Amino acid sequence: ELPFVLFGGMNVLESRDLAMTMAEQYVKVTEKLGIPYVFKASFDKANRSSINSFRGPGLDEGLKIFEEIKSTFNVPIITDVHEPYQAAPTAEVVDVIQLPAFLSRQTDLVMAMAKTQAVINIKKAQFLAPEEMRHILTKFEEAGNDKLILCERGSCFGYNNLVVDMLGFSIMKQTEYPVIFDVTHALQKPGGRADSADGRRSQTVDLALAGMAQGIGGLFLESHPDPDNAKCDGPCALPLDKLEPFLEQIKQLDELRKSFGNIEI
Amino acid sequence: ELPFVLFGGMNVLESRDLAMTMAEQYVKVTEKLGIPYVFKASFDKANRSSINSFRGPGLDEGLKIFEEIKSTFNVPIITDVHEPYQAAPTAEVVDVIQLPAFLSRQTDLVMAMAKTQAVINIKKAQFLAPEEMRHILTKFEEAGNDKLILCERGSCFGYNNLVVDMLGFSIMKQTEYPVIFDVTHALQKPGGRADSADGRRSQTVDLALAGMAQGIGGLFLESHPDPDNAKCDGPCALPLDKLEPFLEQIKQLDELRKSFGNIEI
Amino acid sequence: ELPFVLFGGMNVLESRDLAMTMAEQYVKVTEKLGIPYVFKASFDKANRSSINSFRGPGLDEGLKIFEEIKSTFNVPIITDVHEPYQAAPTAEVVDVIQLPAFLSRQTDLVMAMAKTQAVINIKKAQFLAPEEMRHILTKFEEAGNDKLILCERGSCFGYNNLVVDMLGFSIMKQTEYPVIFDVTHALQKPGGRADSADGRRSQTVDLALAGMAQGIGGLFLESHPDPDNAKCDGPCALPLDKLEPFLEQIKQLDELRKSFGNIEI
Amino acid sequence: ELPFVLFGGMNVLESRDLAMTMAEQYVKVTEKLGIPYVFKASFDKANRSSINSFRGPGLDEGLKIFEEIKSTFNVPIITDVHEPYQAAPTAEVVDVIQLPAFLSRQTDLVMAMAKTQAVINIKKAQFLAPEEMRHILTKFEEAGNDKLILCERGSCFGYNNLVVDMLGFSIMKQTEYPVIFDVTHALQKPGGRADSADGRRSQTVDLALAGMAQGIGGLFLESHPDPDNAKCDGPCALPLDKLEPFLEQIKQLDELRKSFGNIEI
Repeated sequence: ELPFVLFGGMNVLESRDLAMTMAEQYVKVTEKLGIPYVFKASFDKANRSSINSFRGPGLDEGLKIFEEIKSTFNVPIITDVHEPYQAAPTAEVVDVIQLPAFLSRQTDLVMAMAKTQAVINIKKAQFLAPEEMRHILTKFEEAGNDKLILCERGSCFGYNNLVVDMLGFSIMKQTEYPVIFDVTHALQKPGGRADSADGRRSQTVDLALAGMAQGIGGLFLESHPDPDNAKCDGPCALPLDKLEPFLEQIKQLDELRKSFGNIEI
Repeated sequence: ELPFVLFGGMNVLESRDLAMTMAEQYVKVTEKLGIPYVFKASFDKANRSSINSFRGPGLDEGLKIFEEIKSTFNVPIITDVHEPYQAAPTAEVVDVIQLPAFLSRQTDLVMAMAKTQAVINIKKAQFLAPEEMRHILTKFEEAGNDKLILCERGSCFGYNNLVVDMLGFSIMKQTEYPVIFDVTHALQKPGGRADSADGRRSQTVDLALAGMAQGIGGLFLESHPDPDNAKCDGPCALPLDKLEPFLEQIKQLDELRKSFGNIEI
Repeated sequence: ELPFVLFGGMNVLESRDLAMTMAEQYVKVTEKLGIPYVFKASFDKANRSSINSFRGPGLDEGLKIFEEIKSTFNVPIITDVHEPYQAAPTAEVVDVIQLPAFLSRQTDLVMAMAKTQAVINIKKAQFLAPEEMRHILTKFEEAGNDKLILCERGSCFGYNNLVVDMLGFSIMKQTEYPVIFDVTHALQKPGGRADSADGRRSQTVDLALAGMAQGIGGLFLESHPDPDNAKCDGPCALPLDKLEPFLEQIKQLDELRKSFGNIEI
Repeated sequence: ELPFVLFGGMNVLESRDLAMTMAEQYVKVTEKLGIPYVFKASFDKANRSSINSFRGPGLDEGLKIFEEIKSTFNVPIITDVHEPYQAAPTAEVVDVIQLPAFLSRQTDLVMAMAKTQAVINIKKAQFLAPEEMRHILTKFEEAGNDKLILCERGSCFGYNNLVVDMLGFSIMKQTEYPVIFDVTHALQKPGGRADSADGRRSQTVDLALAGMAQGIGGLFLESHPDPDNAKCDGPCALPLDKLEPFLEQIKQLDELRKSFGNIEI
């Protein structure tokens, strides 16, 4: 088993300058620790709770920032698309395009994304069982793209809460596609604040370690230099100055887990 | 309180002829029983489990069928849209456009739908608490449209199951917008069959009566002359020949419930 | 189908005087409305959140109060038992003995209760599916008692919340035992207050009507003259002065529902 | 932080001979690996799904077996009690007495157990939030016993399923009592077989590693030399011949986790 890949960055492209600062910090820490790294940010938050919430710079401006990050830091990029027309231009710049959880059943978006031949990160919707991911994989395969990643991010647990079913990882790993863990969004408390989701960032380490103990292909993480003032999902963001100690622990646990032989039960 | 409105029809426009046959039957039964009626069908099932599932005739052909139903039977029409570009042309033909549950947080779709000034039916996503519907209502209001309907269709309950929280109706009624109940989709068992959702149509009457006992604005119902051979969601569809006895009971219960005075507790 | 039976009373026997007052009021209202009636109260609350919570008068004193109520008002009595030794003496006085939800899997308690030959009310545990009630019924049957009632009181829905799955009633009705609905405890919000459960008594009417729309054998209800000062479960208790208008609506809905023919789907 | 303690053994005392065989094997493996060890078995399964299910040898015979195991292998013992009268005699022989999950709210049982001054293992009920365990701890403290352990074993997740919320461990650790993880029972699928719970023993390693990644005080584990023919909960039991390789991995992960500094977020 390969060491884990970090899909790490920021929730939304708050500004070109902040994106550059954060990419620099991520690159510095992951190079130091020897962790394969993909920069993540969104150019548009298309499903905020409020119409007045910050959405980001949009596709054109976002792609420019991604190009600058790529050329400056020489890192692959992941971002999410929300409409079929966004898939092709996005895939010209970024390396991995992401199917959002709420949209994971939208056939037209799947088709448009598949056609780009980019690597696809499929967020598991909060309303789907791990076994149901098979249907989405098949859609992509039938549309001619099998460069697929499955991404856990928690399941609905009553109202305004998510729970991560650790047993879902091994079920999804049976598909033989890489499975990664979006620990940040799994920490959300949907509808937990007046106008947006709340989160449990103080529990990031614990939840991430549980996920890494499953022997998975990657970790998806959002951080922010000042989470309390982040423009989106601050309550789930890891403070940027904790990135290095956090990843040190993650890497050690990943290495230990992948050193274990399989116990057939 | 006004008598309930029936938003009734078929899941997907399987053919022009079947749509006409079903509209005729719905009109006949609802006229006989004195139930205000809106014809429902989808021109595209954009989120089927499989890429090979039947999706419907598409927007252009679908709107032609809706026009023929309108002119033949003189009934209002409701259908769902999935992409922002579909909102305006659809609203030129149909009377109520529906925001799908999985898409209920997509701001661009909300904006495009709001702008049409059509009546909007907002399906409550399986992952949202009733209190969270307030955010979606506010989005529409801020976009200049307050002709809004809220539609319950069940909440995630573990994997592959939905439950209808009857306490959610009164919470949503506090918004002072009409609340309706999609009994058909609440009967789904998501991921319950190899390639699609299973359903519990044998329990349609019980669940619908529970919903009508909440004193609500309408019932949303899909039926089919031959549910076992329906092209989508047959396991949830009411057999068309049960429509009249079903609605007789529904109407009586609605009338009784709305004759009750409010008991302030 | 027979008209519904009311299993109504108070949570815990706060005092002999209050019990007499409440029994008198229940008898008066149910006689006026022609509703078969069973008086309910607990002599011991054996599973309060806090050791300091009021538990009630205990078995001996409780049975004396029940005897006085029986002889004064000539009504059958239901109460719950928590330990095997309580079953026999309790069944000498009361008519229906109740198996608490948390204890519904305790075989020794089941056996002791079965042996009394009293009618048994089995509370469905919050952690059991409706189909699992079959196991508990079989235990009682094998222990020689088939005078059994199944009682719905809500299912765990995430943390600190319960939901009533209306589809469970018809599943339990297939056992051919009477199914009743404990609307009061289904209104609990477990752990919702610092030292005890919270509740949603303002929604009693809505939830009870949904349950009665299922065509069931009875309603289980707790009320209190001053719910805010009740010694247990006040947040779920119906104010006693609402009993008559509440039962008027319940009775009408029950009658309408049972006038409906079966629609075979 | 101390290394984890293994509370390991068998579900029910199927026979004196099997208990001795298993204790011997557990002792051998844990001594080899340097893992502090407590032998676990039940003398009575008081809440089986069926009246005909095997229940065990009972209190008197069970205590004799425990005494023999103690004197032969010099290990502490843990077992569960179900009725107040069992607490005192059990505590004379065993070292840790366990409050069953379904009974965790029964005040009389709590009081009887507290009075023994034995160490108490409190199973967290499937219907309780982690924060609610505070109430049960307080009951024991007020009854004069603060030698308490909290034990996670999964939460209700829809019907017939359990999920372990990894975020609950750190919430319970805030009580400053040791928190342990019953991985075996967390693998149950309640009601999953015709007459008993089903289980997911093939996922034991994954779930146990996730739990150990939380930095906890102990692991609770049941195994069996022939799980398919175990008399209770075989579908969740670890095959006894996997015990050593399983514990090797668990121990390494526990050591790594406890070598990590705290990252304050």
